[in-house]
Amino acid sequence: MAGSSFGTVFRITTWGESHGKALGVVIDGCPAGLPLEEADIQRYLDRRRPGTSSITTPRKEEDAVEILSGVFEGLTTGTPISLMVKNTSQISRDYSEIAAVYRPGHADYTFDKKYGFRDYRGGGRSSGRETVGRVAAGAIACKILERLGIFVCAYTRSIGPIQADMSRFDRAFILSSPTAMPDPEASMAAMAYLEETRHNTDSAGGCMECIVEGLPAGIGDPVFEKLDANLAKAVMSIGAVKAVEIGDGSLVSQRKGSENNDGFRAEDGRVTKTSNHAGGILGGISDGDILVVRAHVKPTPSIFLTQQTITRDMENTQINIKGRHDPIIVPRAVVVMECMTALTVLDAMMINMPAKLESLEQFYGKK
Amino acid sequence: MAGSSFGTVFRITTWGESHGKALGVVIDGCPAGLPLEEADIQRYLDRRRPGTSSITTPRKEEDAVEILSGVFEGLTTGTPISLMVKNTSQISRDYSEIAAVYRPGHADYTFDKKYGFRDYRGGGRSSGRETVGRVAAGAIACKILERLGIFVCAYTRSIGPIQADMSRFDRAFILSSPTAMPDPEASMAAMAYLEETRHNTDSAGGCMECIVEGLPAGIGDPVFEKLDANLAKAVMSIGAVKAVEIGDGSLVSQRKGSENNDGFRAEDGRVTKTSNHAGGILGGISDGDILVVRAHVKPTPSIFLTQQTITRDMENTQINIKGRHDPIIVPRAVVVMECMTALTVLDAMMINMPAKLESLEQFYGKK
Amino acid sequence: MAGSSFGTVFRITTWGESHGKALGVVIDGCPAGLPLEEADIQRYLDRRRPGTSSITTPRKEEDAVEILSGVFEGLTTGTPISLMVKNTSQISRDYSEIAAVYRPGHADYTFDKKYGFRDYRGGGRSSGRETVGRVAAGAIACKILERLGIFVCAYTRSIGPIQADMSRFDRAFILSSPTAMPDPEASMAAMAYLEETRHNTDSAGGCMECIVEGLPAGIGDPVFEKLDANLAKAVMSIGAVKAVEIGDGSLVSQRKGSENNDGFRAEDGRVTKTSNHAGGILGGISDGDILVVRAHVKPTPSIFLTQQTITRDMENTQINIKGRHDPIIVPRAVVVMECMTALTVLDAMMINMPAKLESLEQFYGKK
Amino acid sequence: MAGSSFGTVFRITTWGESHGKALGVVIDGCPAGLPLEEADIQRYLDRRRPGTSSITTPRKEEDAVEILSGVFEGLTTGTPISLMVKNTSQISRDYSEIAAVYRPGHADYTFDKKYGFRDYRGGGRSSGRETVGRVAAGAIACKILERLGIFVCAYTRSIGPIQADMSRFDRAFILSSPTAMPDPEASMAAMAYLEETRHNTDSAGGCMECIVEGLPAGIGDPVFEKLDANLAKAVMSIGAVKAVEIGDGSLVSQRKGSENNDGFRAEDGRVTKTSNHAGGILGGISDGDILVVRAHVKPTPSIFLTQQTITRDMENTQINIKGRHDPIIVPRAVVVMECMTALTVLDAMMINMPAKLESLEQFYGKK
Repeated sequence: MAGSSFGTVFRITTWGESHGKALGVVIDGCPAGLPLEEADIQRYLDRRRPGTSSITTPRKEEDAVEILSGVFEGLTTGTPISLMVKNTSQISRDYSEIAAVYRPGHADYTFDKKYGFRDYRGGGRSSGRETVGRVAAGAIACKILERLGIFVCAYTRSIGPIQADMSRFDRAFILSSPTAMPDPEASMAAMAYLEETRHNTDSAGGCMECIVEGLPAGIGDPVFEKLDANLAKAVMSIGAVKAVEIGDGSLVSQRKGSENNDGFRAEDGRVTKTSNHAGGILGGISDGDILVVRAHVKPTPSIFLTQQTITRDMENTQINIKGRHDPIIVPRAVVVMECMTALTVLDAMMINMPAKLESLEQFYGKK
Repeated sequence: MAGSSFGTVFRITTWGESHGKALGVVIDGCPAGLPLEEADIQRYLDRRRPGTSSITTPRKEEDAVEILSGVFEGLTTGTPISLMVKNTSQISRDYSEIAAVYRPGHADYTFDKKYGFRDYRGGGRSSGRETVGRVAAGAIACKILERLGIFVCAYTRSIGPIQADMSRFDRAFILSSPTAMPDPEASMAAMAYLEETRHNTDSAGGCMECIVEGLPAGIGDPVFEKLDANLAKAVMSIGAVKAVEIGDGSLVSQRKGSENNDGFRAEDGRVTKTSNHAGGILGGISDGDILVVRAHVKPTPSIFLTQQTITRDMENTQINIKGRHDPIIVPRAVVVMECMTALTVLDAMMINMPAKLESLEQFYGKK
Repeated sequence: MAGSSFGTVFRITTWGESHGKALGVVIDGCPAGLPLEEADIQRYLDRRRPGTSSITTPRKEEDAVEILSGVFEGLTTGTPISLMVKNTSQISRDYSEIAAVYRPGHADYTFDKKYGFRDYRGGGRSSGRETVGRVAAGAIACKILERLGIFVCAYTRSIGPIQADMSRFDRAFILSSPTAMPDPEASMAAMAYLEETRHNTDSAGGCMECIVEGLPAGIGDPVFEKLDANLAKAVMSIGAVKAVEIGDGSLVSQRKGSENNDGFRAEDGRVTKTSNHAGGILGGISDGDILVVRAHVKPTPSIFLTQQTITRDMENTQINIKGRHDPIIVPRAVVVMECMTALTVLDAMMINMPAKLESLEQFYGKK
Repeated sequence: MAGSSFGTVFRITTWGESHGKALGVVIDGCPAGLPLEEADIQRYLDRRRPGTSSITTPRKEEDAVEILSGVFEGLTTGTPISLMVKNTSQISRDYSEIAAVYRPGHADYTFDKKYGFRDYRGGGRSSGRETVGRVAAGAIACKILERLGIFVCAYTRSIGPIQADMSRFDRAFILSSPTAMPDPEASMAAMAYLEETRHNTDSAGGCMECIVEGLPAGIGDPVFEKLDANLAKAVMSIGAVKAVEIGDGSLVSQRKGSENNDGFRAEDGRVTKTSNHAGGILGGISDGDILVVRAHVKPTPSIFLTQQTITRDMENTQINIKGRHDPIIVPRAVVVMECMTALTVLDAMMINMPAKLESLEQFYGKK
């Protein structure tokens, strides 16, 4: 089925495979009048690009974005924005083994079961390169949110056993850090851990977190279109994510109610909370506090150790994956999480506009 | 926005508030020809009913379901099935405090911010009673899945610090246990823990798990309609859930790739895996193994301890919640998780039918 | 598939069969704060009720609507509004012939081919009674539109060869007329025509028209969600409609451009047009002029003349339909067309709110 | 809102403006395993290309399609197919008048009201060039349908007052005819009529028809997703269409039931009808007979006669449109109608697969 679209009023549709001619996204429903140029998007794409340190693949992905439609004289027109990134650096190599054998932890086997065959070059549509479209679209969502005073920020919370100490949170460091951690000390320890992991031809998992500041209360719809439900879908749809948490997340299952409830407090006409265990969402609707989402990411499945597996012809065999792979997925996935969060929040805000009859009447003029 | 529908081809729409006249659900897209009677649905509704032990509210909810449409001579007709449960036992009481003061951990404040006011009687639409519709619909999804040899089973994994020991897994015990735990020993310990919690006028969190057995490989769609993404949305949409995990979930972030990958093995023409850390999903598509989903549920926010909060008029105040409330949400939410999982899996299976051109050609006859 | 829902942000889901226990609708996404009581809806349902004249079936349909959810203290809450009408007057009769033989012009054969069998009592889900839910929901849409100064009005344009003369347009007459024509003279002629048709045990077709006054310019979305495209779907989905026209409709195919274009004119800061051949829509978007939609409705397929047909077992046979049937569908379908138009327009208006970035910024406050 | 997507399981998303860098479409949900190459699509695009006769604009549109994703080793993979056509021949000219003045019959005014401004070059998104994406996607739908023995064929039914005589129906002539009429004699007369129209610097309307042969009974969903309702939306969404008819269409409103009903007949185990006034659809579901859809298309609004209009600044003015324009829209829109019909029918067929429980059980294997 059509599974490459996300969002209702602000909707994106991504396309493209790892080794096809190009990848891209169509953003439909973007409000008219937003100043937009390629540099706005390129800035985000550069954050998911590898080749910047020892822990990302040295493969050079230029990922230069091109705006093909939807922008006129520097402003979005309200009609679909088509963005394309050409695949320029995909090396022609021998895929005969990957074509015949299912790599553990990858989607090779499940794609074959679903579709009968697959584009096996570099993982095809199940490759991490699929996220190029998400990030290009998310850059636009982030730009709109910023104009509304809403800031989305994702970072690495932990790598293997190394946790970021949030008391050392340094926002500026996130973008310059090879680990995307906000804590310089933890980042250094994580780099050492990853070096060792790579030396052992193994890979490491990690945890990433995204916060949203400035979000007004009242966003999200009860029951099935809860803001946290849509965030869970958005974030779980990122390849390799195996758990999603809101606020204190899995910790709540061992808590007492008296420990977990956040009291409300009024100060100078503003509402605050005595704590934010809820992560800014109550009953699926934003409460005006900081939104907190977390995702646990599995280790890169491509490792160089010998692994038990089967061939397409159902023969048992062993595989030794070759090539160069990141020893960890998280640092490059952080910007993807930021973008998926921004897309979810913006769509919910646009949908929310007619929630009160009063708003509809003010907009169109009560008669 | 319209947020009370779930699913694409097999779609449900729930309605009703805690203290309204009735609650219900419309199931649209149910295949024609399924034998269906009220008893099939009542069996599931009875599992979410309180009043069966010391840890659930003694409030008597009869929750007798009525089939209003979509069934003819005992078979579903393919047209919408409307199910209704009348609210019969909602006691008329004084809601003046709840109307004026925001309860911590509840959706009172966020509903007011979104809609301008709210039905405050018993939580209105944000009450746990909203799940009546989900469970009634899920009962039908479960019945269809069983005919396809697919079995969905949810249970309590932990209550506060008490973990079920899965080596003592007793499936039959789940339905008879007041805790919905599959481990009789842990269940007994959990009951003692809850008794103490209640004695302290506090509440407890817990964790629930759902497994799906018999699911074929190939279900779920890449990118945004991944099976795990839709399960995450489905489960996170249940009130009080703050984290969703697939397979080994949050543990993967501390793993090495060599520990986390599941090898494939072929035996007698069948594919198995050397382990199931992935929880039955690779690249968003089922791999034929057992599906494993887990949800962490916060403690009941209604506690009898004095809490800091504000009034509708933005005055600081303190609240002492009265009435009778379950000291824990999990045991009654287990059947809701089972139903949301079944709805997600069935819809994905129906959508998957034309994934291969070959299937379409076989169905309609290639010319 | 789930085919009983209509709309995106303001979405309705109808259910129920002709001879089931009840029929109803769930309205999801209705803005909060609308005063609503059963009488608001009953007024519309009464317009589709038969038994008021010689040209409608004398069968007594009380169709008393009940609000089951979504309204609190007289106001809509923003959560789903469930409306139900019990089937009280369905006479138990012998359906053995209808069960075994396919009636020409009805959906008996196609339902059997799709679902394998059908609820044959009174047409089941394909009965005109299905429109009860549409009308109940449309009454709410109309009420909201009226508060925005937008008025939707449908009427009969022609019955058989008898055309209403629009120069005699009498709005008040529509509701009191048995034909729903706005022209008393034509109505009288049409009554005579229908009397003769009934005398010949035959039935008659007709044409209905709907206008929308007060609609602002800018409603509807380019390409596939054009306002006229969605109106065409909405109106064609009404049983027995075989053609839909916007503005001058089918006449345009014989026109010259110089005859068909509507010039723009500015007067006192307001835009008017020199004519309205376009029916108020240009490029799929409303132009601020009166919206005009027309539908051609086939004659009632249930006639008492002997007809050639087949049995379920594929035997050729002849059928003589018994019972009492309206000799024409149009007068009772007029309110259905009004309601479908209102639902389409309101949903498009709600969706349109964030079309300009400026609107989003004003709503949420630019920072 | 996101209005550039069409379809549920087989879904397309188009993008691009008349004078942007490129136009294109993403086809999502295409079954895996279809042989597909650019020539399959180019063949359809060539049919909507102008410059082939005196009645189409001499502007040279090469419209060479490029497949950017979703095809591997000549077969569709089940993942999104991205198609792009570069805009190569858009002449840089002076758009200052068009930018400042609203052309009658065009979407200039309504786009400005909706979005605050517009891309005025060549009509921007509201240009007929928008249909490039529809046709490219429709070519794929047609190819799949043909493999199922289903053939979609559209043609011109009338131009101005000149009607095709269907007794002279010559299918092969449609593709070679400059009018896309199936009747060579009428086509010649129509050419003369158009020559005269052009000579008078005016334009002409016309009617186009589309038939579908080989469609099985049972396709389409009751109530709102009726096959005819979705066809009406699909066809009305084509620019300049002002009326849509199914089967005998608007004629039915003047018919008697005895004239309009189609009898069923069984012959050698096959069901036929004694006539096909219904156009192959009963109750919104296909009946196995030939599907007949018709669309009335307004005259090209760009005419060279002086017209009354207003400027963006609300000043009354007159406009003399310059440039070269087709004197009629129909011949080039015929392939668009064929494609929209194919897309609608294919999506409905894919959605229909699990309508019977029996089908689901056969597909997945009843246990």
